[in-house]
Amino acid sequence: MSEQNNEGHSGRDRVVLAYSGGLDTSVAIGWIGERTGAEVIAVAVDVGQGGEDLEVIRQRALDCGAVEAYVADAREEFANEYCMPALKANAMYMDAYPLVSAISRPVIVKHLVKAARQFGATTVAHGCTGKGNDQVRFEVGITSLAPDLKCLAPVRDLALTRDVAIDYANEHNLPIATTKNNPFSIDQNVWGRAIETGFLEDIWNEPTKDVYSYTDDPTYPPLPDEATITFDQGVPVAIDGERVTPLQAIEEMNRRAGAQGVGRIDIVEDRLVGIKSREVYEAPGAMALIAAHQELENVTVEREQARFKKTVGQRWTELVYDGQWFSPLKGSLDVFIDDTQRYVSGDIRLVLHGGRATVTGRRSEQSLYDFNLATYDTGDAFDQSHSRGFIEIYGLTSKLAAAREAAADGTAAGGTAAGGAE
Amino acid sequence: MSEQNNEGHSGRDRVVLAYSGGLDTSVAIGWIGERTGAEVIAVAVDVGQGGEDLEVIRQRALDCGAVEAYVADAREEFANEYCMPALKANAMYMDAYPLVSAISRPVIVKHLVKAARQFGATTVAHGCTGKGNDQVRFEVGITSLAPDLKCLAPVRDLALTRDVAIDYANEHNLPIATTKNNPFSIDQNVWGRAIETGFLEDIWNEPTKDVYSYTDDPTYPPLPDEATITFDQGVPVAIDGERVTPLQAIEEMNRRAGAQGVGRIDIVEDRLVGIKSREVYEAPGAMALIAAHQELENVTVEREQARFKKTVGQRWTELVYDGQWFSPLKGSLDVFIDDTQRYVSGDIRLVLHGGRATVTGRRSEQSLYDFNLATYDTGDAFDQSHSRGFIEIYGLTSKLAAAREAAADGTAAGGTAAGGAE
Amino acid sequence: MSEQNNEGHSGRDRVVLAYSGGLDTSVAIGWIGERTGAEVIAVAVDVGQGGEDLEVIRQRALDCGAVEAYVADAREEFANEYCMPALKANAMYMDAYPLVSAISRPVIVKHLVKAARQFGATTVAHGCTGKGNDQVRFEVGITSLAPDLKCLAPVRDLALTRDVAIDYANEHNLPIATTKNNPFSIDQNVWGRAIETGFLEDIWNEPTKDVYSYTDDPTYPPLPDEATITFDQGVPVAIDGERVTPLQAIEEMNRRAGAQGVGRIDIVEDRLVGIKSREVYEAPGAMALIAAHQELENVTVEREQARFKKTVGQRWTELVYDGQWFSPLKGSLDVFIDDTQRYVSGDIRLVLHGGRATVTGRRSEQSLYDFNLATYDTGDAFDQSHSRGFIEIYGLTSKLAAAREAAADGTAAGGTAAGGAE
Amino acid sequence: MSEQNNEGHSGRDRVVLAYSGGLDTSVAIGWIGERTGAEVIAVAVDVGQGGEDLEVIRQRALDCGAVEAYVADAREEFANEYCMPALKANAMYMDAYPLVSAISRPVIVKHLVKAARQFGATTVAHGCTGKGNDQVRFEVGITSLAPDLKCLAPVRDLALTRDVAIDYANEHNLPIATTKNNPFSIDQNVWGRAIETGFLEDIWNEPTKDVYSYTDDPTYPPLPDEATITFDQGVPVAIDGERVTPLQAIEEMNRRAGAQGVGRIDIVEDRLVGIKSREVYEAPGAMALIAAHQELENVTVEREQARFKKTVGQRWTELVYDGQWFSPLKGSLDVFIDDTQRYVSGDIRLVLHGGRATVTGRRSEQSLYDFNLATYDTGDAFDQSHSRGFIEIYGLTSKLAAAREAAADGTAAGGTAAGGAE
Repeated sequence: MSEQNNEGHSGRDRVVLAYSGGLDTSVAIGWIGERTGAEVIAVAVDVGQGGEDLEVIRQRALDCGAVEAYVADAREEFANEYCMPALKANAMYMDAYPLVSAISRPVIVKHLVKAARQFGATTVAHGCTGKGNDQVRFEVGITSLAPDLKCLAPVRDLALTRDVAIDYANEHNLPIATTKNNPFSIDQNVWGRAIETGFLEDIWNEPTKDVYSYTDDPTYPPLPDEATITFDQGVPVAIDGERVTPLQAIEEMNRRAGAQGVGRIDIVEDRLVGIKSREVYEAPGAMALIAAHQELENVTVEREQARFKKTVGQRWTELVYDGQWFSPLKGSLDVFIDDTQRYVSGDIRLVLHGGRATVTGRRSEQSLYDFNLATYDTGDAFDQSHSRGFIEIYGLTSKLAAAREAAADGTAAGGTAAGGAE
Repeated sequence: MSEQNNEGHSGRDRVVLAYSGGLDTSVAIGWIGERTGAEVIAVAVDVGQGGEDLEVIRQRALDCGAVEAYVADAREEFANEYCMPALKANAMYMDAYPLVSAISRPVIVKHLVKAARQFGATTVAHGCTGKGNDQVRFEVGITSLAPDLKCLAPVRDLALTRDVAIDYANEHNLPIATTKNNPFSIDQNVWGRAIETGFLEDIWNEPTKDVYSYTDDPTYPPLPDEATITFDQGVPVAIDGERVTPLQAIEEMNRRAGAQGVGRIDIVEDRLVGIKSREVYEAPGAMALIAAHQELENVTVEREQARFKKTVGQRWTELVYDGQWFSPLKGSLDVFIDDTQRYVSGDIRLVLHGGRATVTGRRSEQSLYDFNLATYDTGDAFDQSHSRGFIEIYGLTSKLAAAREAAADGTAAGGTAAGGAE
Repeated sequence: MSEQNNEGHSGRDRVVLAYSGGLDTSVAIGWIGERTGAEVIAVAVDVGQGGEDLEVIRQRALDCGAVEAYVADAREEFANEYCMPALKANAMYMDAYPLVSAISRPVIVKHLVKAARQFGATTVAHGCTGKGNDQVRFEVGITSLAPDLKCLAPVRDLALTRDVAIDYANEHNLPIATTKNNPFSIDQNVWGRAIETGFLEDIWNEPTKDVYSYTDDPTYPPLPDEATITFDQGVPVAIDGERVTPLQAIEEMNRRAGAQGVGRIDIVEDRLVGIKSREVYEAPGAMALIAAHQELENVTVEREQARFKKTVGQRWTELVYDGQWFSPLKGSLDVFIDDTQRYVSGDIRLVLHGGRATVTGRRSEQSLYDFNLATYDTGDAFDQSHSRGFIEIYGLTSKLAAAREAAADGTAAGGTAAGGAE
Repeated sequence: MSEQNNEGHSGRDRVVLAYSGGLDTSVAIGWIGERTGAEVIAVAVDVGQGGEDLEVIRQRALDCGAVEAYVADAREEFANEYCMPALKANAMYMDAYPLVSAISRPVIVKHLVKAARQFGATTVAHGCTGKGNDQVRFEVGITSLAPDLKCLAPVRDLALTRDVAIDYANEHNLPIATTKNNPFSIDQNVWGRAIETGFLEDIWNEPTKDVYSYTDDPTYPPLPDEATITFDQGVPVAIDGERVTPLQAIEEMNRRAGAQGVGRIDIVEDRLVGIKSREVYEAPGAMALIAAHQELENVTVEREQARFKKTVGQRWTELVYDGQWFSPLKGSLDVFIDDTQRYVSGDIRLVLHGGRATVTGRRSEQSLYDFNLATYDTGDAFDQSHSRGFIEIYGLTSKLAAAREAAADGTAAGGTAAGGAE
């Protein structure tokens, strides 16, 4: 392994731990060490979740007993290689959820595996429970990149409950705040924010206002905000004429669409592990960009390509939701989707207001919309005389089936199908 | 033909004409007569488009020269047999358009064929142009119900342009207003309203306010309106506890969601005849009902059934958009969809406000959401120990593929796949 | 539970065991009793696997220590309710395997659950290993019919290996032959026969002749055998003019097609548990009937219905292979498929010879094949003048895309798309 | 247009004609000239159809009045760029027909367009009738490569019936045999051969022996022939260890599989123009290669990729059958399929005998078949203890649905779903 850097290695097994800087994974450092005898390397990846500085997190990991701490600013990588494919796929699980956590897991996995190779670890650990999707995304992701690595989930496999974690942190004086009262379970990154909570587990309850952080209340919006987004081959490259990177595009739309309350989602969702769960999300930038991208596709993608792309996009979305980012099928769907984006270039004008991201204009040099064919005014280039023949042949299989049905029903429809086809 | 009622029939061919009461079809009565020598029977069908009384329309048809006039109040039939299947399918063409005109054509076709049988006609005529979807929907619909009937489109086949129509109406003193200035082309029914216009043919232009009629401006909404919709097997049966028929449900939601500006749609759309066109729609009731129905499905439909139903729903929607309402495949998709609706019963609480129809609560005795499995609190019934085995086997094909890829890349991933599977 | 019949019940837990009469399940009766303390009820179901009499098997179960023995002749039930749906679906997993074991598991499951209810059992046991599909089919089947029952696989869960079984049988003098030398693992029923063996696990090896039992060697066939199969709504109802039940149809075709070596299958197959395995099958009747049914569909099913049915059939086949016979989606796919079979009635003439089942003629009163439309002779009723318009509009989206591509490539294709559409 | 070579051009319009050298297209040269006033350029393309030398055909075209004659040996191009994609897709329309004519039309179209550019033609003509698929394949192909070119079908558009052609040839003394008695209509190329005939239009009739030319009668085969085909990324590269090009692979398998009567097909088929027609094909090489390729995919392609590829392959096949070879969607499906072929490399051993092409062995360094995971012998690396957890979670959605159904049925299944999940 060329990247391996395990000189001075103690000989003990090493575990790479996905580290958030929070209570559970801070405790896990010591807990894993105690239960398994292994050394723990903490890995923290910035996917735009905000919060603390990576350097602060790095230091805390070491203070909590990690033998090494690996931190990475993966925000550009995440935006370019994970959010943009989701945008090109118009990925919306169950037509609603733009895959917030589902696309951050694989980029974190990539860094976990990189760190495992670098520090000579044999096991990768993560802080997920045993009943969610994320454990699957982590573990199938790891197994798909590094089939030789083992996986460990202290919460699930080493009985590291929250109560245990609080007691352990207090006993060991870990440099981390502990509180039994944690109303929400939250995961966030630049593409969006996911919220679960005991209160929301009653699916008749409406989310309370304090659930939200990326979006302001759409009920009392500021004045409408108009944005023009320029795409090149499916990727946003400018907003209101200013060049942006994908990361900047998401961040700017998070800010502007978030101010208008765009992108709040509240659904009952089918988890891979077989249960339905209630999820609240905020994804203002993602939802605004997808709305714009989808309409630009309407203008620039040929009909049959667009229709089949929906099937491909649905399968892509399910696979990614289900933790199969690195699977062979996902890769093949990606090349299909990329091929459809060749001409998805142009401008979309969007009005953001009161929870709505409304497309109000579209223009593209690659447009398949042809004014001369579409217009009912003078200048119409569409030869309507073709329609009779088209309809006659297009409807022929239904006509023949209808003639049979009429015959079967004993209704003398008069005329045979053959006669009717004359 | 049992229903035939053509005593006193003159011996001349008879043409049944889909009659709206407007300029074009009023002129068509005489125009068809002159060009083909046939007698014209006018057929007007009320699908909730509002406007004039059926009796007024009937009289105008006769005044314009129709030998018979057939009028039908098909509002309940349309709501029950056409809108409800669209709702069960969550039918949204290109994820946006709830099939407004596309589902009204078949019910009109049914009455046209019924009238043709009753009055002994051999031909059915309609007022569509030769470049839209509706000509196909009429003619394939007719051919699918009555393969022996011929079709005629005076605009397309007999050169009945608007200018010709105006001149004809003036010359013949027809009892109908004529104006060259007709900014919009509109089709409406209880499920929604479709607007096309010269101004909108420039796809960079934003719709102006006068385009809309079913919806108020969402920018300045009244106070939020909360509605609880009760479904039984996919069909709305009560609103806020009051029993409603499907027609009443649509009408009430049109009124209440329309007041909040819900259901405005503006897209570039792929027509069956191969061109892209710009369409503006309003469908406040349809959009609110679909949002509610979809979330109730999330709660009550099993995951794999729900995933495949999306594929079925997409095909259903394309078929209906493409004029194949009466096709064999559409029928088979219907029985599939109906089977999925067995448990889609329960309540959805919806807040209507500022263009948004937001689900805020759901409850159902048929719910597959199981609090005890979903909760992270005490009482959790999900046995997390199953997850390790699940993940191991669920990820196995990707793991084996990854091991091969690692071998192919010459990266000694360590351990064989077989070993890794231990 | 109305059918419950557990008077005189000892108070001990009861386990229902899927009993074949062979060594492994004979030993399992005692083994389960010893390991779990439960009473064992043996259940043997005849699905046309041939071999011993049900009564003999029943007695052996009791002799081996079962407290009750439930036997059922399910051959007609299996043919009608399991084989016929597979035939209607043209079910061929990976385009090759007509689901032999996969469709027998659910009918056995049905009887296991019935017996469990009747005898007050809380657990269902089966003889499968922990790496195949059948364990999943049994256990998911049981859980789908009776979510309250527990499952037990002695081989997987109670370490009942073959060696252990032989020793146990010898020690306890069980009335069953024991031999260490068991070259093949075989499962058979009236729909076909599945063979696995150590020798075949090397996928470069050709099956030896002794592998086969339902089919003769196709290399040296008898004279060709011509059969005419009459279908009614997708189900065979007569062969060579003689009325047959589904069971009789399968049996007769097993005999006649088997004599010609029809229906040998040898593939590497994707198991649900994530591994690929090498499987050899014989299914002479199934393969001949599917060939006939498929061609009758070609004649009687409308094109778009047929195309979508392939997608449905593929999903149906995967679901059933994957053990989801009783799942909600499978039920919805069934109603779709049944709807497509309404007109699949008529005769297929088949020549069976040397491993081939070749359709040589088809006739149906429900045929959509229309000689007058198809013929190139005089009498042709197809109006070729419609084709120009059809092609022009059918090809329009590709033409517009091509014009854009030409423009993008800088190749002045001459003429605009609009112009070209004139 | 850089390639244009129309110096000395007369100023008359020019028509490029797809020229076969046969009666109909020989007559069409003069007929088109007379009816349209245009000059005709004959284009003959060798796609392995056998028969006359290209030079002979070229001279005949000129003798019949063509102003230019363009001939091309496109056999390698056809094999590499048209047959190989069909092989990778396992393209079988209606699970039966390996797209013989459907894939030759686009390569001919490519040369027609090239010739049109070279010789400054504005129109492309072909010899198809107005009721088949090939007119669509030619015209949509041309419009997709050169949206500015016009299309002409003398049989359909200029009333050039067979009788007219014979009279014209006799009158003008054209150097071509004329006969009224032409029992079959045949199209052939290296991928296969298509036969239509008046006799076969009665679908109860069996094909007579004289219909076939590529295959010998499978009823009386020679001794079995064993062939080992080596594939690299989905393409055959060696047979029995000898390197071959794709063209050589097809030709050799045509010879060897043809001698055994492999690849005869007889079906009723759904045409794009809405009618069903009876078609007989021979494709010995294609069928043998597809059988081998498909089994190598079974060994080397990951399960989910393989399952989705079936959907993609079906759509690919329908598109190509339907004349959309050059469509955007077809291109996107191609990149998907190519991506799946990365590891489709290895050897397939095939026995050809008596109409059967039977795979008897497979080996690949890229195999995903893992003996250690698949074996039931010692050495088994599959950890069966994972299966319980897998089954529990895999079956959970069906179990919850079943519990609901039991509750709805009023059958107290005992235990709640939640309880059951413990």
